Amino acid sequence: MPFNIAILGASGYTGAELVRLIATHPEMTIKALSADRKAGMQMAEVFPFLRHLDLPTLQKIDEIDFAGIDLCFCALPHATTQQVISALPRNLKIVDLSADFRLRDAAAYEKWYGQPHAAMDLQAEAVYGLTEFYRAEIAQARLVAGTGCNAATGQFALRPLVAAGVIDLDDIIIDLKAGVSGAGRSLKENLLHAELSGGTHAYSAGGKHRHLGEFDQEFSKIAGRPVQVQFTPHLLPMNRGILATVYVKGDPSAVHETLASAYKDEPFLQVLPFGQLPSTRDIAGSNFCHLGVVGDRRANRAIVVAVLDNLTKGSSGQAIQNANLMLGLPETTGLMLAPLFP
Amino acid sequence: MPFNIAILGASGYTGAELVRLIATHPEMTIKALSADRKAGMQMAEVFPFLRHLDLPTLQKIDEIDFAGIDLCFCALPHATTQQVISALPRNLKIVDLSADFRLRDAAAYEKWYGQPHAAMDLQAEAVYGLTEFYRAEIAQARLVAGTGCNAATGQFALRPLVAAGVIDLDDIIIDLKAGVSGAGRSLKENLLHAELSGGTHAYSAGGKHRHLGEFDQEFSKIAGRPVQVQFTPHLLPMNRGILATVYVKGDPSAVHETLASAYKDEPFLQVLPFGQLPSTRDIAGSNFCHLGVVGDRRANRAIVVAVLDNLTKGSSGQAIQNANLMLGLPETTGLMLAPLFP
Amino acid sequence: MPFNIAILGASGYTGAELVRLIATHPEMTIKALSADRKAGMQMAEVFPFLRHLDLPTLQKIDEIDFAGIDLCFCALPHATTQQVISALPRNLKIVDLSADFRLRDAAAYEKWYGQPHAAMDLQAEAVYGLTEFYRAEIAQARLVAGTGCNAATGQFALRPLVAAGVIDLDDIIIDLKAGVSGAGRSLKENLLHAELSGGTHAYSAGGKHRHLGEFDQEFSKIAGRPVQVQFTPHLLPMNRGILATVYVKGDPSAVHETLASAYKDEPFLQVLPFGQLPSTRDIAGSNFCHLGVVGDRRANRAIVVAVLDNLTKGSSGQAIQNANLMLGLPETTGLMLAPLFP
Amino acid sequence: MPFNIAILGASGYTGAELVRLIATHPEMTIKALSADRKAGMQMAEVFPFLRHLDLPTLQKIDEIDFAGIDLCFCALPHATTQQVISALPRNLKIVDLSADFRLRDAAAYEKWYGQPHAAMDLQAEAVYGLTEFYRAEIAQARLVAGTGCNAATGQFALRPLVAAGVIDLDDIIIDLKAGVSGAGRSLKENLLHAELSGGTHAYSAGGKHRHLGEFDQEFSKIAGRPVQVQFTPHLLPMNRGILATVYVKGDPSAVHETLASAYKDEPFLQVLPFGQLPSTRDIAGSNFCHLGVVGDRRANRAIVVAVLDNLTKGSSGQAIQNANLMLGLPETTGLMLAPLFP
Repeated sequence: MPFNIAILGASGYTGAELVRLIATHPEMTIKALSADRKAGMQMAEVFPFLRHLDLPTLQKIDEIDFAGIDLCFCALPHATTQQVISALPRNLKIVDLSADFRLRDAAAYEKWYGQPHAAMDLQAEAVYGLTEFYRAEIAQARLVAGTGCNAATGQFALRPLVAAGVIDLDDIIIDLKAGVSGAGRSLKENLLHAELSGGTHAYSAGGKHRHLGEFDQEFSKIAGRPVQVQFTPHLLPMNRGILATVYVKGDPSAVHETLASAYKDEPFLQVLPFGQLPSTRDIAGSNFCHLGVVGDRRANRAIVVAVLDNLTKGSSGQAIQNANLMLGLPETTGLMLAPLFP
Repeated sequence: MPFNIAILGASGYTGAELVRLIATHPEMTIKALSADRKAGMQMAEVFPFLRHLDLPTLQKIDEIDFAGIDLCFCALPHATTQQVISALPRNLKIVDLSADFRLRDAAAYEKWYGQPHAAMDLQAEAVYGLTEFYRAEIAQARLVAGTGCNAATGQFALRPLVAAGVIDLDDIIIDLKAGVSGAGRSLKENLLHAELSGGTHAYSAGGKHRHLGEFDQEFSKIAGRPVQVQFTPHLLPMNRGILATVYVKGDPSAVHETLASAYKDEPFLQVLPFGQLPSTRDIAGSNFCHLGVVGDRRANRAIVVAVLDNLTKGSSGQAIQNANLMLGLPETTGLMLAPLFP
Repeated sequence: MPFNIAILGASGYTGAELVRLIATHPEMTIKALSADRKAGMQMAEVFPFLRHLDLPTLQKIDEIDFAGIDLCFCALPHATTQQVISALPRNLKIVDLSADFRLRDAAAYEKWYGQPHAAMDLQAEAVYGLTEFYRAEIAQARLVAGTGCNAATGQFALRPLVAAGVIDLDDIIIDLKAGVSGAGRSLKENLLHAELSGGTHAYSAGGKHRHLGEFDQEFSKIAGRPVQVQFTPHLLPMNRGILATVYVKGDPSAVHETLASAYKDEPFLQVLPFGQLPSTRDIAGSNFCHLGVVGDRRANRAIVVAVLDNLTKGSSGQAIQNANLMLGLPETTGLMLAPLFP
Repeated sequence: MPFNIAILGASGYTGAELVRLIATHPEMTIKALSADRKAGMQMAEVFPFLRHLDLPTLQKIDEIDFAGIDLCFCALPHATTQQVISALPRNLKIVDLSADFRLRDAAAYEKWYGQPHAAMDLQAEAVYGLTEFYRAEIAQARLVAGTGCNAATGQFALRPLVAAGVIDLDDIIIDLKAGVSGAGRSLKENLLHAELSGGTHAYSAGGKHRHLGEFDQEFSKIAGRPVQVQFTPHLLPMNRGILATVYVKGDPSAVHETLASAYKDEPFLQVLPFGQLPSTRDIAGSNFCHLGVVGDRRANRAIVVAVLDNLTKGSSGQAIQNANLMLGLPETTGLMLAPLFP
């Protein structure tokens, strides 16, 4: 019998992506959907692309009966999430897609998010949700904190390299290109089609982007000493997809071999042959991450390029991958959908 | 045990779309793939988005052993298809995605395609593949001819109306907007990103588009007398999707009721409430067709808008829907994938 | 010595387009710019693409000294415009880009815009700004009301045909495809890149779009009896450009000859050879309108396709063309910029 | 009286862009246009967006009478250009837009372009066409070699920094994002709308892109010792525009001040206030280059972002800027067109 699922925050893109993926997941059934400002509406009104599905009516969170729910996805905005999850039944399994439980250090949270953490007891039990590196903990966890989509992309390119000591830890640059759905369904001038299409720009450059908190935490933990990368995101005229171009100092062959070896049994992480480069077009709508490595003409310099879909492997697909583990299901259940091309 | 499938013409968009859909189809296994000019290559080289799949190496058609194949999809260019299918084993079930067997009348074929039909014996057994209207024949057929993607869209909007006699048969206009993947992976100047993006134009206007052959054949058959629609396609800066705006003379409520009633049990055809209009964004990558009806301010005039994905419901999804019937499987098997949005 | 120009509403797209065009206009100098909510800011902050220009600081309207101003462009939202223009000096030449003075009949205005007209005395002196058809009046006018961008496109395709009596006036369909900048810089969910790109939909179908007020007024005036067209606009994933596909009943050659003859001396209206069709890509950023005519396979039916840039020929370019006439300048002054392609 | 201009290679994008710009240039008249494979055609057939212009019929190069021509733009493919220019009258002023005369060193040319240089005598007199840095030589030159569009972007970001010694010359990374028109009007699968839109990928990574030849030549010349940058271009789903994100080690304030000071009198090079970042949308269709500088959170690291339009400032606009100097005209003549936004 399928597990009963609730999704809080179903009127945003990550919420809708959860519904899209669960629609063909053989072991999950959606029993409750929340969207505070759209309570009472049908999902087909909010997202007509889900019209063919028989879904529960949108509710306010406090109207949901969590009695029969096995697992709850929480796709709410940052900051409010801490309050909401604090109020949920303590036995409920939760996969959170917000940034609220990603940083283990309260000071780091306050630094990057501009306010004190409001649920440090929950933080203590939260497991960082980068599945491929926290499998055992996730399988035992009650609360899993999904990663930032940019943070996931950079980590897939770098974690094995940092761990193996094959690169200079003091000279890592992540130049990242991201599609617009990562910014959510929010009404901002720079997200309008007329403003965004046909051009590109960098933003939050110079060490201002919040996902640096995750990079710092994870890379420093792996290295056993502080690691600070450079990180420059760019907004591209595309809806889905992140491409991270990562500049490292180290032997390109060793870099490639380290990644290929680390990921050789991973169902979703595909390392291309040395010298080949991936495209975001080849992972759109899927839970796959493609990685390529090339050497530079200058000795001891390598370029790692990683691509994934920010809404799938970068958030909602990752969330379901984690939920599968938490529910004792095979990790790939419902997630082997091929990318959509063209 | 799954059925064994061959795909001829796997290096084009409709071939790749077949592979994408079969990748998660529980009752089909791909046993052979052909691509004459790319024989010897792996699909991952031709379409890196399929990299995660374990697929047979591309072969030339005459290298394929059809002995164990249950059903063959033929996604080859128009005109060459007739020769290829003529040479295939006569007991092989075939779903053809080309235009070669769509027109039952040899003269009509020659008129629209500019050359005599080369396999009229096969034509005699071919069933027109618009599933919802030829179910019984398709389930018994050996050879099914997939419809044109534009032709499918227009027919979903019009067939029940023509049959019910609720519209004027002499004054039907189909103004159609199509994405670029319908033109295939062919190297033409007007399909370049630099030429196509950011603008639109009409083409084959005034009764020149070949899909008129299908409209004429089908609408005239239903009406029992000649029906000639007007049809103007436009090319839009989008990859997938067709939107047909159909202008008819008849009572708008009767038009809506006729469609809603005709399609009320159809899993893939969704008629919106009267007055609501569909968007191609809501069906991308899926086998669904959404239909909307509005009345005009002028009496007795209605506008029907139909949307579908040309590569899915318009060709490869339709082909699998037909194959399901031919193999005795539930019609929706493997086809309930939700659309991709955004 | 150049004329002194003021632009009210400089923080929207039509305001910015006026600045773009005047930047290289040899006989106009911008002396004042208003944007109520952005008063005190520089244009370079609101529109960085205008950074290279030396422009006046944005002001509130009531801070502007109109003493030395020769002509004022008013690019404000509908409805508020009537109040604003009522309060301007009565000797000031004004080109209004809003909808507030387009409809001569108070009842028609109220019907389409949902409120009573608040400045009927000004309406009485307002001239409808479709330059090619109101040249003499515009040259003498103090207040010119720019047309709707969709309304302009449809009229360029149809006015000579209605006047010449070569088409059936009771069966005209305008199926229009429009880029997104026509909707302005407003924060609406359906204008987000993630919602708009890669797809299309119809809107305001069935006789609901306000520009029908202009069609009704103008075509009925020309015909000397009521004329009501059908009009269905569609939103396309492109920033600039309108393509109107107009279905008429009449002899295609006569239709083409009528348009070619009517526009043979027009600098901005280009009629293509019979059978050729225009593309919005060929007029982007320019004041040109291209028109094509094809005959249908069914006798006595013609299709007219007209394209223009909604921000240029559809509003701000048209406004400058009218201003040139009002100031006694050659009509094409500053407007011969070539389109931008690709 | 305007100067008489010939354009060789008028059927490509840079050729068309020259025509677009000269259309409103007050001191240039196009007297001859060549396009070997399209000789005999009108430009309006090849580029309908130029339909409003009265242009000479396309000819083969050897049909052109160069007698009355003052200056010839050569927009031909690489490699064939050397032969063509060798055969032109020796007194003709020439601005070449190909790569054939950019590299002063024959060995470097052969290394990057894979064949020996065929016109070293012409190379000897050729001046590198980065206007802002070679003004005096260009004004005296007979043959000017336009720069690569990527090469121009990177140099605008870096030349003053290399010259001033404010950055580490051994650790420069140029991560570049380019629109598709830079690849020309060539029929390649990866340039199709269906392949390119909605995604991004890196190419020629690791030191393989030919524009490195220009970077090496120029930066080494300025520094007085070998300088080798890292350079990774990415193809973006946009038609026009290049954005270069340049990572340097040096004091961010010094970096900004060096650029601001170097460019303070440049009409086309606009340095934004410290901490602000430019967008390609703000320079589309114009001859402007915007530059921004931010400091990283890590000390002594700066990020310089430069944007320009590859077809305008990156090639055809630059070419006209150089031609203006060669003809004794003010450098900005005909080039102050505002960018097109949105």
